[in-house]
Amino acid sequence: MTSNDSCKSEHLIDANQLALVLEKFATDRNWSQFHSPKNLVMALTGEVGELSEIFQWMSEADSINAGQNLATAQDVKDELADVLLYLVRLASVLRVDLNEAVTNKIKANELKYPVASSLGVSTKYNKK
Amino acid sequence: MTSNDSCKSEHLIDANQLALVLEKFATDRNWSQFHSPKNLVMALTGEVGELSEIFQWMSEADSINAGQNLATAQDVKDELADVLLYLVRLASVLRVDLNEAVTNKIKANELKYPVASSLGVSTKYNKK
Amino acid sequence: MTSNDSCKSEHLIDANQLALVLEKFATDRNWSQFHSPKNLVMALTGEVGELSEIFQWMSEADSINAGQNLATAQDVKDELADVLLYLVRLASVLRVDLNEAVTNKIKANELKYPVASSLGVSTKYNKK
Amino acid sequence: MTSNDSCKSEHLIDANQLALVLEKFATDRNWSQFHSPKNLVMALTGEVGELSEIFQWMSEADSINAGQNLATAQDVKDELADVLLYLVRLASVLRVDLNEAVTNKIKANELKYPVASSLGVSTKYNKK
Repeated sequence: MTSNDSCKSEHLIDANQLALVLEKFATDRNWSQFHSPKNLVMALTGEVGELSEIFQWMSEADSINAGQNLATAQDVKDELADVLLYLVRLASVLRVDLNEAVTNKIKANELKYPVASSLGVSTKYNKK
Repeated sequence: MTSNDSCKSEHLIDANQLALVLEKFATDRNWSQFHSPKNLVMALTGEVGELSEIFQWMSEADSINAGQNLATAQDVKDELADVLLYLVRLASVLRVDLNEAVTNKIKANELKYPVASSLGVSTKYNKK
Repeated sequence: MTSNDSCKSEHLIDANQLALVLEKFATDRNWSQFHSPKNLVMALTGEVGELSEIFQWMSEADSINAGQNLATAQDVKDELADVLLYLVRLASVLRVDLNEAVTNKIKANELKYPVASSLGVSTKYNKK
Repeated sequence: MTSNDSCKSEHLIDANQLALVLEKFATDRNWSQFHSPKNLVMALTGEVGELSEIFQWMSEADSINAGQNLATAQDVKDELADVLLYLVRLASVLRVDLNEAVTNKIKANELKYPVASSLGVSTKYNKK
């Protein structure tokens, strides 16, 4: 068993190194003072808005092939990264274990959306 | 060196297992038909909106201590998980390597925001 | 000329009465203390997220006919109203004249997107 | 009684002229094809994201005085206008009467948040 296999077997997601790098990035620039959860949620909102702007005039079919245009593909990578950076930083300042949070949420979703009754039904999926 | 150390040393983030679980979750329910990038960006927007609602009337100081209220702490974990689930699913359908994307973005940010000129300056940080 | 015509001829939009009603609504409940622009932008984000959730799994074609389902039509009216209420309240606390702001923005857009070069081109429209 | 008074007395909000101008703007450029409700909600999301970016690193106190910086004041006017333009266009393509929608919503909010039990309580206000 390689270390990579064992790593994957231990976590659905492991963002610990990223969280440490982002904390150092903020500390080095004395930016931690700006990184309240409230502010980070607004920064996350801004980046999701930029992601939305990439796809707003695309058809669903075009959005599936967005990566075929090199400039669009790079924009997508950059915005997905920005959203992820703020999300991991936000979880870090809130002391939330993202792996635990998603593991529990997926278990809850499996109970909420049984395969039989959810098959191909987006409306059920859509319910809060 | 443990496999865990080596895992962490290889990636800033490893979401591969989560991406596989989410793909199976969607495939089992025949939901892949709904998971166009355009739709997933809208679903991501909805979850970020729910995250924003948790913090909208809090002061920054209160947002830092949001975890001290058990009900709020659970809401925060659930919404952070929902945002992460849609983000990882979106990257997966777009065939974007999140670890590569964030690694490149952090390198770019280090050049864009030199420590000396960025020290404690949020306005610079705020610039697009 | 009726007063209604003259009203319309004077403004692209007149939200003054709504702004006054919202200010009284907040003052009566001692909610003005919560209505900082920062907080109201987060509340606006939450409502746009709820609007997005209505349409996230719909095709574009279905979104055009969303009003044909009575329950969906009511949800759409409610969320459009919530977004508008927070937007008008936000402009009010920031002392922004919405009619002046949109009038100037439309003039700028007419220069930015000349008919000849913009005809049927969403990419140009999409550029910041 | 001036026509302006009578105008205000008839509507909480009158955006009919703006809706007509936006429809002509889109028709002249053959952009109506892009203006499905689904796409317009994404465009609205993008503009709210830009609005959020203006305030993300501000304290609440600074956000109240955002208009004192001329450059920030202009950015705020432009983004509030962009959000309003897409909101009115969205209501227009969905055939929603915004004045009726907000009038009904305010009546519902008056029942949902009685003055006595809502006084200074943001948590109640925050409940869905």
